[in-house]
Amino acid sequence: MKKVGILGGGQLGRMLLQAAINYPVETFVMEKEAAAPAAHLCNHFIVGNITQFDDVYNFGKNLDALTIEIEHVNIEALEKLEKEGIHIYPNTQALRIIQNKILQKNFYKENDLPTSEFIITQSKEELKNISPFFPAVHKLSNGGYDGKGVQIINNKEEIEKGFDSPAILEKKINIKKEIAIIIAVSDKGDTAIYPPVDMIFDQSLNLLRYQISPAELPEKVFWKVEAIALSAIKKINSPGIFAVELFTDENDNVLINEIAPRVHNSGHHTIEGNYSSQFDMLWRIILGYPLGNTEAILSTALVNLIGEEGYNGTPIYEGLNEVLEMDNVFVHLYGKRETTPGRKMGHVTILSKERQDLLYKANKIKHQLFVRS
Amino acid sequence: MKKVGILGGGQLGRMLLQAAINYPVETFVMEKEAAAPAAHLCNHFIVGNITQFDDVYNFGKNLDALTIEIEHVNIEALEKLEKEGIHIYPNTQALRIIQNKILQKNFYKENDLPTSEFIITQSKEELKNISPFFPAVHKLSNGGYDGKGVQIINNKEEIEKGFDSPAILEKKINIKKEIAIIIAVSDKGDTAIYPPVDMIFDQSLNLLRYQISPAELPEKVFWKVEAIALSAIKKINSPGIFAVELFTDENDNVLINEIAPRVHNSGHHTIEGNYSSQFDMLWRIILGYPLGNTEAILSTALVNLIGEEGYNGTPIYEGLNEVLEMDNVFVHLYGKRETTPGRKMGHVTILSKERQDLLYKANKIKHQLFVRS
Repeated sequence: MKKVGILGGGQLGRMLLQAAINYPVETFVMEKEAAAPAAHLCNHFIVGNITQFDDVYNFGKNLDALTIEIEHVNIEALEKLEKEGIHIYPNTQALRIIQNKILQKNFYKENDLPTSEFIITQSKEELKNISPFFPAVHKLSNGGYDGKGVQIINNKEEIEKGFDSPAILEKKINIKKEIAIIIAVSDKGDTAIYPPVDMIFDQSLNLLRYQISPAELPEKVFWKVEAIALSAIKKINSPGIFAVELFTDENDNVLINEIAPRVHNSGHHTIEGNYSSQFDMLWRIILGYPLGNTEAILSTALVNLIGEEGYNGTPIYEGLNEVLEMDNVFVHLYGKRETTPGRKMGHVTILSKERQDLLYKANKIKHQLFVRS
Repeated sequence: MKKVGILGGGQLGRMLLQAAINYPVETFVMEKEAAAPAAHLCNHFIVGNITQFDDVYNFGKNLDALTIEIEHVNIEALEKLEKEGIHIYPNTQALRIIQNKILQKNFYKENDLPTSEFIITQSKEELKNISPFFPAVHKLSNGGYDGKGVQIINNKEEIEKGFDSPAILEKKINIKKEIAIIIAVSDKGDTAIYPPVDMIFDQSLNLLRYQISPAELPEKVFWKVEAIALSAIKKINSPGIFAVELFTDENDNVLINEIAPRVHNSGHHTIEGNYSSQFDMLWRIILGYPLGNTEAILSTALVNLIGEEGYNGTPIYEGLNEVLEMDNVFVHLYGKRETTPGRKMGHVTILSKERQDLLYKANKIKHQLFVRS
């Protein structure tokens, strides 16, 4: 059996290990927190810091392959491991580009991949000289995650909100739709594309409301989205699973927002909704099996379960029974010991042929299921 | 989080733990073999013998609930635990009936549940006086499992094949179809019935060839199968998951063959084929959630992967890549360290709207995928 390690033990690791159960593989997880969601689901759990060179190197040196649950890992250790013959998914060359938002934006530019206009900044001070560019989005080059490290700066008066470290300032675009698309790449370079996902936001709260897959897109936009995403992933030149997030604007221009080089929240519906889920697919890639079928079995909606404002501590899932009584709904709770405001605590997938049923139930779940304490 | 234990750490425990990942629950497994398929997938693995009173009692005494992967567990320990308030799925009263084939047959008789005619025997010697009853099937009262403890005795000359311990001798019937049906029962006594499954046998080898769900049955037979199975399970009076195996004969009489008080091979297709799988359903029961939806998403065929004759040792899955390339096929390998002839090493589920596609692929997989060493 191949020995495969995962850096990080959160919900992505948890669902990855859930899919691993179908295959013969010896699994390893490293994570600081011994009670992490994935800690008890692997063959070998190692307490360690995924951002520390020694921890990552020692974890990986006797494995056949390594993958990541989060981009912010010690890349120098991965580079040493890769040189020693351990397979890293994604490879470190791709990870280097993606870990750093400046490199990522330059990668799009150099490869003629459409993305919003941007300026590289080193300090807040610099923002003062570029006001014609506002409204804009300031993004920290390193370490941003799940909405952290991102500030919207509408005008000169808001420059104070900006970052005083290397960052990119992106021109704000009039977003019509946010689309995500998961792409799988095998060691041989074969690719498989999942149907695109509509990320439907709550404009007032700037929060993801729910996801619908397959996305409803005019045919021309659909092909553009697929072509741009695939072209970006081919140029990134690495095996693994990639989530490409894109915007369309009011003129149906398609722009790449960012790429995650790993299984991703925007692909969770594939567990029930597609023949081969993003998690199943990553195991197929790592274990050298053929790529799976990305086709949808039925359409899906996905609602994230987020720790509610004002609650900290042992989670209580209010309204869970009502949701579990729905006929075509799949509940995934991540088993986290503590809820905090905004923390991802689970998700619910709805499976249906009828788009109306998806929307109705997604909204119902939004108003019925709460993570409190 | 509730603390729930599973007695046994084979593939049923493995798939049960795979489903548990969706819910907040602290899992415990007891099993002799530390490298068992389920051993690494629980929060707490305890090496122990599930047939020993002390091992079972000590394992269970601090848990909220216990379930089983196999009937042959120490029931006295479970009875003591049940008295002390630990919830056992199935309850020990039901388990007592089912563990013992004589009690099981008498249970059918006393409750007017149709089953084949039978005689209770204590020794081979007795068989000599009941020859008008042949051809018949001799089944050991205790300890039979997966075809072991069963002998077909066609005539007086074959009496030597019989058992010299308590057993039942069942009159052989002309089987037209073998049907299995999974039924879920909640703590409150609510029930949910899965669509019946066609168990299609290789008559010459007396081996299960594949399963198809939902079964193709004339409407009248369908209702009879459901009514008889449900009536049996209601009379068994226990929460849990139950697999009822039934025969139909050439006159479309429906007879109960036997009941398993646990998740069962005949329900493995529900993982992908039904909204709530048998494994998901058992967690819903144990955790006190509402029962799930037993409806089929699509029809399924299921092929068991059995260790081939003549091979012992580290398994090699020949033909696996060809099967993984099929569009609508789900491979489940149980991660067993050794294959032996006849050992269940995995299963493959095919999902399709088209019955022809199911049959075609089931046959193809039968001729393509082999467990050797």
